[in-house]
Amino acid sequence: MGNCCAYLGPQKNTNVRVSLPAVCFVWQIAMIVLFGVFIRYNPESDAHWVEHMRTENISSDIENDFYYRYPSFQDVHVMIFVGFGFLMTFLKRYSFGGVGFNFLIASFGLQWALLMQGWFHFLDHSTGKIYIGVENLINADFCCAGSLIAYGALLGKVSPVQLMVVTLFGVTLFAVEEYIILHLLHVNAGGSMVIHAFGGYYGLAISWVLYRPNLHLSKRLNGSVYHSDVFAMIGTLFLWMFWPSFNSAITDHGDGQHRAAINTYLALASTVLTTVAISSMSQKKGKLDMVHIQNATLAGGVAMGTAAEFMISPYGSLIVGFCTGIISTFGYLFVTPFLENKLKLQDTCGVHNLHAVPGMLGGFIGAIVAAAASEEVYSREGLIDVFDFEGKHANRTVGTQGGYQAAGTCVAIAFGLVGGAIVGFILKFPIWGDPADDNCYDDEVYWEVPEDEETIPPVLEYNNHMIHKHQDIH
Amino acid sequence: MGNCCAYLGPQKNTNVRVSLPAVCFVWQIAMIVLFGVFIRYNPESDAHWVEHMRTENISSDIENDFYYRYPSFQDVHVMIFVGFGFLMTFLKRYSFGGVGFNFLIASFGLQWALLMQGWFHFLDHSTGKIYIGVENLINADFCCAGSLIAYGALLGKVSPVQLMVVTLFGVTLFAVEEYIILHLLHVNAGGSMVIHAFGGYYGLAISWVLYRPNLHLSKRLNGSVYHSDVFAMIGTLFLWMFWPSFNSAITDHGDGQHRAAINTYLALASTVLTTVAISSMSQKKGKLDMVHIQNATLAGGVAMGTAAEFMISPYGSLIVGFCTGIISTFGYLFVTPFLENKLKLQDTCGVHNLHAVPGMLGGFIGAIVAAAASEEVYSREGLIDVFDFEGKHANRTVGTQGGYQAAGTCVAIAFGLVGGAIVGFILKFPIWGDPADDNCYDDEVYWEVPEDEETIPPVLEYNNHMIHKHQDIH
Amino acid sequence: MGNCCAYLGPQKNTNVRVSLPAVCFVWQIAMIVLFGVFIRYNPESDAHWVEHMRTENISSDIENDFYYRYPSFQDVHVMIFVGFGFLMTFLKRYSFGGVGFNFLIASFGLQWALLMQGWFHFLDHSTGKIYIGVENLINADFCCAGSLIAYGALLGKVSPVQLMVVTLFGVTLFAVEEYIILHLLHVNAGGSMVIHAFGGYYGLAISWVLYRPNLHLSKRLNGSVYHSDVFAMIGTLFLWMFWPSFNSAITDHGDGQHRAAINTYLALASTVLTTVAISSMSQKKGKLDMVHIQNATLAGGVAMGTAAEFMISPYGSLIVGFCTGIISTFGYLFVTPFLENKLKLQDTCGVHNLHAVPGMLGGFIGAIVAAAASEEVYSREGLIDVFDFEGKHANRTVGTQGGYQAAGTCVAIAFGLVGGAIVGFILKFPIWGDPADDNCYDDEVYWEVPEDEETIPPVLEYNNHMIHKHQDIH
Repeated sequence: MGNCCAYLGPQKNTNVRVSLPAVCFVWQIAMIVLFGVFIRYNPESDAHWVEHMRTENISSDIENDFYYRYPSFQDVHVMIFVGFGFLMTFLKRYSFGGVGFNFLIASFGLQWALLMQGWFHFLDHSTGKIYIGVENLINADFCCAGSLIAYGALLGKVSPVQLMVVTLFGVTLFAVEEYIILHLLHVNAGGSMVIHAFGGYYGLAISWVLYRPNLHLSKRLNGSVYHSDVFAMIGTLFLWMFWPSFNSAITDHGDGQHRAAINTYLALASTVLTTVAISSMSQKKGKLDMVHIQNATLAGGVAMGTAAEFMISPYGSLIVGFCTGIISTFGYLFVTPFLENKLKLQDTCGVHNLHAVPGMLGGFIGAIVAAAASEEVYSREGLIDVFDFEGKHANRTVGTQGGYQAAGTCVAIAFGLVGGAIVGFILKFPIWGDPADDNCYDDEVYWEVPEDEETIPPVLEYNNHMIHKHQDIH
Repeated sequence: MGNCCAYLGPQKNTNVRVSLPAVCFVWQIAMIVLFGVFIRYNPESDAHWVEHMRTENISSDIENDFYYRYPSFQDVHVMIFVGFGFLMTFLKRYSFGGVGFNFLIASFGLQWALLMQGWFHFLDHSTGKIYIGVENLINADFCCAGSLIAYGALLGKVSPVQLMVVTLFGVTLFAVEEYIILHLLHVNAGGSMVIHAFGGYYGLAISWVLYRPNLHLSKRLNGSVYHSDVFAMIGTLFLWMFWPSFNSAITDHGDGQHRAAINTYLALASTVLTTVAISSMSQKKGKLDMVHIQNATLAGGVAMGTAAEFMISPYGSLIVGFCTGIISTFGYLFVTPFLENKLKLQDTCGVHNLHAVPGMLGGFIGAIVAAAASEEVYSREGLIDVFDFEGKHANRTVGTQGGYQAAGTCVAIAFGLVGGAIVGFILKFPIWGDPADDNCYDDEVYWEVPEDEETIPPVLEYNNHMIHKHQDIH
Repeated sequence: MGNCCAYLGPQKNTNVRVSLPAVCFVWQIAMIVLFGVFIRYNPESDAHWVEHMRTENISSDIENDFYYRYPSFQDVHVMIFVGFGFLMTFLKRYSFGGVGFNFLIASFGLQWALLMQGWFHFLDHSTGKIYIGVENLINADFCCAGSLIAYGALLGKVSPVQLMVVTLFGVTLFAVEEYIILHLLHVNAGGSMVIHAFGGYYGLAISWVLYRPNLHLSKRLNGSVYHSDVFAMIGTLFLWMFWPSFNSAITDHGDGQHRAAINTYLALASTVLTTVAISSMSQKKGKLDMVHIQNATLAGGVAMGTAAEFMISPYGSLIVGFCTGIISTFGYLFVTPFLENKLKLQDTCGVHNLHAVPGMLGGFIGAIVAAAASEEVYSREGLIDVFDFEGKHANRTVGTQGGYQAAGTCVAIAFGLVGGAIVGFILKFPIWGDPADDNCYDDEVYWEVPEDEETIPPVLEYNNHMIHKHQDIH
């Protein structure tokens, strides 16, 4: 494999036997030390809970936040590891890398995220400690998602060491932009922008800096086979099914979680129909393309990332899904080739169409829906609850809020683009063990790959035998 | 592919480039308009929830129906999309169609179901609106299940446009029969009959009308390969594991949900053992057949669809599972071939044995268990709670209830058979883009299928090369 | 298949057409009879619940144990059937046996476990009945896990009838050791030892007795192919993601469940990094080995099986994961080959490294953490709650408790080793239909396996055709 092209230039050194273990050990030990210094259980996960219940006048264990959020947490957890992981198994010979490196970087990222988000959002300044509970776990999973999205743009073209760097910086940038957006701008329910717009543009910027002019040398491996497309559907479906949990996992208890789940469910259903429609229209014989079904069907969930908690109304959710299905599928048909040919931007999974654009749209949809909010629709208390018009934000109007929501979206995109460009340049150093241009999308580079001799059916072995015999005769 | 048989008659036009997008767009736009007119959030998902809590004297957010039902909803959601979808990936070259079209029609069906079920069961006549919450989402998923079951009988033989028609009518018929059974007959816990008996007979009736005398021309593709059978086990297991949630998702809070889950769990466990036993007995060397393991193991869940909520007692559940495992496996061994050869009924997935018959049995089991209910076993309040002997049904006896339960089962079957026959005739119009008899079970017809050249190991490529060279020499 | 080796000795009789159905029917009928005599609904799943609420002064249905535990139960259920099942699909031609036999024996095991655990832990001596609810279902799933772990050591080398025997005795032994450990020794949160240490050593002891000196004759099938490794990742990830539910499913309501989930989540994340590091270091070019990623990444969950509920603190969890990832991966690299070559112990899945050793470690970690517990960290009430220092154990000190925890671990290992040796000798009788040494790891023995002719791409069929033609010419 790949030997035939060795004359094209010096093979890159893809041996990560020193760098990968070094990075894993150093970073994991750092995590242990920092957790030792900073991270403690919060009152709901601490053995003092019984005392806390008495102090806070909580009447039952079922009021522990665990029971409000744990089912959604597990759904989100499945999305992060099986959803993102299997969605990236579609390449014919990069399924190990897709699901395996996703597993690695998410496992690192969530630890780093607990710290970064803890410092910015959950630090108790009197004790200097971060007190964690189930909501922190969900947030850490979300924070990883940004870097996993970026991986989608880089799939098959980077080394696991590079991915660890992408995640280290990705989580850091995420925590900072999230702090600016949620705390300084007081934006609400910012999933679309904070996670998807940021993650998408972060990955695109890195990929743009790492442009490989000779990537066509790996073209033979940049595609799917029948069963790898079926594996990818596992990822697609678990993302699709659990997206209502993604968008409702950390919204307000009660109607907030309830409404966010309903809105996301509806938007996603609508997206499937328009994705199928555009996919079928785009082919001469009306055949569907698995790339669209695997990816664009999810765009409705991304686009509802902010507005899901708002009173967008059920038909509003359907409209959002309707439009994003069309936009995302058009993106796969026209924008991804355009980016690659004209802008020198190679985006393996098309995160531009699934995360970047729908995430940006979701941010602006959230801004519009926020600006249109009224006491009539929300009730006075509901309005205050949903938008947290309390404390120093008590006098903010819905119009102002809409403006801040839009501003937050721009901040997320800016962080993605600038941060991604910087990280891209760091990744260009020739020390990270990335593959050569003729060696991309190939698990052989970083994995012990079994030989698939078993896929040769007996009849063929017989024929091969005959051929050799035959040749001997001559 | 298929060219060799072109002389058998004019190839059918399977181009759905106009019809599929047209159906998707028209129906999705209709959904948006109808949702705009009819669908609103219910008090538990509306921002007025805080006011509602005060009015209704609800003390905590945890009392929101979301927390009672959302975990079960997500399990059901997985069953609909991954369960049914992957169960239908077993064919060697129809995995895209199995999981992909299931995805499409469920996404449409659940929207239409929210409306149809809303009009019949949840319409507020004073405002003319349907107010939805998580229970409606579960019901909508259930309603889709009827049409997805029907798809099992049609798998590989119909176009996606036909499937959209099957779903449109399937959901409509479902809502009507459900209204008759649950409201007019006041039947309780009618999952077995309303979903499975209806869906099964609906699919069988359609398939009977669409009988293809020359289907043997596609025989080469009507079977599994090794890995497609493993994919199908993903569907089987998620259906099997989450069936307790299916049968308990909308039963009464508290003991109702609790008991329904236990009963279903036990029945399913028992089914597995008798399925394995019969499967092994049926082969000369005692080898197991994947078709049985993938399907008949689920029959116990179907058969408990009604009685799960009742006090059938744990050993009663085991007996139900025991019997249905045997009946269902016998069905795959003897009834499906009989139906195909004698009754001209081609049932790709054997829904007759997994849904139709176990669903019917489940209805009658429910009738017997209901008729045998007593105050001693249920307590007076329990009896009223479980069977809703309130209002105008306050004087109904358990014997009468049993009779109505049986009648409901008959209504479901009648709706399936008559409705299916009519829909079958509609689908015979030559405008729907269905495949020719020699072109069934083939993803090539409606999907862009990747070429699997990668499954040729290098040694073979070398040999091929040698062959050609060899031929050149001559 | 296998015919070529027939001269090596008389082929074993692998026909299970009588024995497998007989075992399934007899055992399932026994279950029905015993359930009829012993098993009833508990007050939370019985229709008398409303009366029970009034008696016990329970104010809301949401206080039913169902809502505390059902989401975790479903996660555990997925681990048992999809997790363990798919983890064992990694062999190139034993995926049916991996996932299918796992399905069979878990379905039997959970019924037998409800009885065995019921008799030992939940029997109401006044009525002679066992009253079950959702917690019993979780415990039954746990109890099965012991035997499923043992199956991992035996994978590909035993018949389904033998597996039923392994499960019958495995569940029985489990219930007895659990009774000794939890009730007589009053050990707390004993998952690591009761499930994993026991199950691991039980499987290893059986495998040691069943040593096959000529197993190298099946060497061609003892390995993976590309897609079977991807299937196995489904098992790995569902185990990994849901392990927090495994360790928290039956811990105390409130902070207990909450803390157990957090600790497990952290330990598992840490394990992934050290597994990757050691796996990469072990290969000349730093390539990762799928065997390690599929298995050793889970060791952190096993090792937290006891301490998860304790106040081990977040950084403590990371340290546990860190160490077990290293130990487990070293096990796969050095100990498994050593066991096979020196100790004549063939361990197909390496349960020694994933369950036996991490389970034992987990038991001792629990002992140390228990011995180090203090009122300061737990609060007085917390300490009593977590360690159940009530009744006759009210005066136990944390030091004594630590000692008992360690003793419990030794009991579990002893039960596994002695019980496994005995069961191994039972399985040596030549009546169970096990495969010959040259016929192991092959689904052909117990399954109808489809012919994979479809994996030959058309171009090859053409070439084959040309070869034959060619030969004719000569």
